[in-house]
Amino acid sequence: MQFASRLDNVETSAIRELFKLLGKPGIISFAGGFPDSAMFDVEGLKEASAKALAEEPGGALQYGATEGYEPLRTQLSAFMKTKGVDVEPGGLIVTTGSQQALDLIGKTLVSPGDKVIVEGPTFLATIQCFRLYGAQLISAPVDADGVKTDELEALIAEHKPKFVYLIPTFGNPSGAMLSLARRRKVLEMAVKHGTVIVEDDPYGDLYFDKAPPPSLMSLTKEVPGSRELVVHCGSLSKVLSPGLRIGWMIGDAELLAKATMCKQFSDAHTSTFAQATAAQYLKSGRMPATLAHVRKVYAERAEAMGAALRKELGDAISFAQPGGGLFFWARLTGANGKVADANELARRAIEKLVAFVPGAPFYAEKPDAATLRLSFATANVEKIQEGIARLGAAL
Amino acid sequence: MQFASRLDNVETSAIRELFKLLGKPGIISFAGGFPDSAMFDVEGLKEASAKALAEEPGGALQYGATEGYEPLRTQLSAFMKTKGVDVEPGGLIVTTGSQQALDLIGKTLVSPGDKVIVEGPTFLATIQCFRLYGAQLISAPVDADGVKTDELEALIAEHKPKFVYLIPTFGNPSGAMLSLARRRKVLEMAVKHGTVIVEDDPYGDLYFDKAPPPSLMSLTKEVPGSRELVVHCGSLSKVLSPGLRIGWMIGDAELLAKATMCKQFSDAHTSTFAQATAAQYLKSGRMPATLAHVRKVYAERAEAMGAALRKELGDAISFAQPGGGLFFWARLTGANGKVADANELARRAIEKLVAFVPGAPFYAEKPDAATLRLSFATANVEKIQEGIARLGAAL
Repeated sequence: MQFASRLDNVETSAIRELFKLLGKPGIISFAGGFPDSAMFDVEGLKEASAKALAEEPGGALQYGATEGYEPLRTQLSAFMKTKGVDVEPGGLIVTTGSQQALDLIGKTLVSPGDKVIVEGPTFLATIQCFRLYGAQLISAPVDADGVKTDELEALIAEHKPKFVYLIPTFGNPSGAMLSLARRRKVLEMAVKHGTVIVEDDPYGDLYFDKAPPPSLMSLTKEVPGSRELVVHCGSLSKVLSPGLRIGWMIGDAELLAKATMCKQFSDAHTSTFAQATAAQYLKSGRMPATLAHVRKVYAERAEAMGAALRKELGDAISFAQPGGGLFFWARLTGANGKVADANELARRAIEKLVAFVPGAPFYAEKPDAATLRLSFATANVEKIQEGIARLGAAL
Repeated sequence: MQFASRLDNVETSAIRELFKLLGKPGIISFAGGFPDSAMFDVEGLKEASAKALAEEPGGALQYGATEGYEPLRTQLSAFMKTKGVDVEPGGLIVTTGSQQALDLIGKTLVSPGDKVIVEGPTFLATIQCFRLYGAQLISAPVDADGVKTDELEALIAEHKPKFVYLIPTFGNPSGAMLSLARRRKVLEMAVKHGTVIVEDDPYGDLYFDKAPPPSLMSLTKEVPGSRELVVHCGSLSKVLSPGLRIGWMIGDAELLAKATMCKQFSDAHTSTFAQATAAQYLKSGRMPATLAHVRKVYAERAEAMGAALRKELGDAISFAQPGGGLFFWARLTGANGKVADANELARRAIEKLVAFVPGAPFYAEKPDAATLRLSFATANVEKIQEGIARLGAAL
């Protein structure tokens, strides 16, 4: 069979090969990118789905509008309002996870050869998703305060990208949080250059001590002309359940109309069964308690992982302690002749029965082979201590 | 905002405009393409989803494999076996409705400019879906026995298409059923020309009196070399519930691997919540009774619609009585100076409070303006008689 030429732009990820090794018995894995199943509010979701089927069986089981199930759009509008974003139910569309929002953005906006600026490092599936539509990706550097805005603006001026894709809050994999000052700068440069900014925000609700600065979408209120240039992608995957596949996209009306047309031919609509369940769940008022619980547990685990890394790996590793999200992003320093190649360390770590993800594949260009990503989400404090001790031994 | 060039290949459908009028109070609609909500086995699905959450909350709510949730793949493999198709669970992937199977086929196989042969008429969303990937569509004519194989073979020889897309059983919109002899011919020409055949089969289970001939995929057993050339798309939407968005694709291992990679960046995976519910439903053993009920009700409605059309429209309309599916495909003859343009009739019909879909948009090329599609699925016998009487009056 002869496949489409667009497939030449993506390669099967190196990470997939690593993931095959994770089945090894006794392994402690910091490699995943998913939330802890033990924290799902199963009871609340059971009630929500039963209620959805009892109260609106037709709506929950029949074909639905491509834009999304109205009661869910209404709930998501209210949910966004609690986060400082004013959006009418008709100002957002429901997507099959926020991964589909990215796919629709690619399908709707990217012509082959178009340039797109992403963070270096950024979400792996974003890189591949946009490349499948022929995007040429340019990487903007980040530090602990998120993307470096001076360098971003220089890249925008040079490359005139179709859009800039950012994960401003507890980014995957960087864990970084874009500072308030830089958020303002991003919006100002969007207006100045007429550049579309895609804000992917699956982790914003997973903060530990204090809430992050307002999202870019929320801040558009303060920067005239910026609202129609920002596309915001939200998701219930990290805070409620990935299995529902409920994401959403907020943006300019014309973009949403085009994305809806593309979605019609992608999957017709997101499962109305899942949408009706999510709508009932949000309506039930259980979300704030669920969020509080998730934040508390992840905060403990992040604390434990930071302490263990300092204790077991010392100056052989450098990292910023994340204030939320699911990930540590770290760099092997090579101090005292220790290994500085994350791939090599990953191989040794698997032998010691601990796993993480090397950072290089997260770069669209100029990979840094010394970087790695560690998730603290799915192992408890004891496992985290044991796993990081093994990592120290592997080093 | 400047949109991707691929959007230039599709237009917002004329049908959408018509659908906006369907909200008129008192209208009887034969325009839809969906099953009757009143026939959903709500009780069975309620039990299935409760069981899924009770027995496997992690699996039902967590991220899952892109290829599909194993217990569902196992059930679908067994379901296909009852329909004469031998496929291991690993030989199929789960898709977000069969619409996504079409999208993945387009993404995986179609390079811009590639030719694809479809039936004339064919499923509207297929036309747009493939065009978004840059396909140039060629139309092969159909009659009541499905696609005309002699003309199809000539078109294959002339155009050397990337693949041929067929809805062989109770096609949408044609209602036609590809005869057994023609099915064999299609497989033989696939082997002879090395042409991939995509078999879309959402309606095969909705037969009235007697079961249709074996699917193309089932018949590959009899035609050496044809199995790896056939891609089969199945769906639970028309027989159980569209809202679950559960479809599947069976095909060559390399194609499935590429489609899985594309799906990873499209929506990561189909809702595990919906997949686990569908798996429990299929396992519960309720499907055969559900199918028997649906077949009986649709058979009565198809019978009533055929009789009403003959009575009310007489020789001003010609059609073949469908043996299954959801649709009548008809042609205005213009006899006795009656209107022969389906668009004009649609406008008059809306005034008389009855709706159907004109046939022209279902043609990828050379539209026949005298054709129309009538769904008998969602109105009961009385409404069908009343609606067709109104149509007669509109004529």
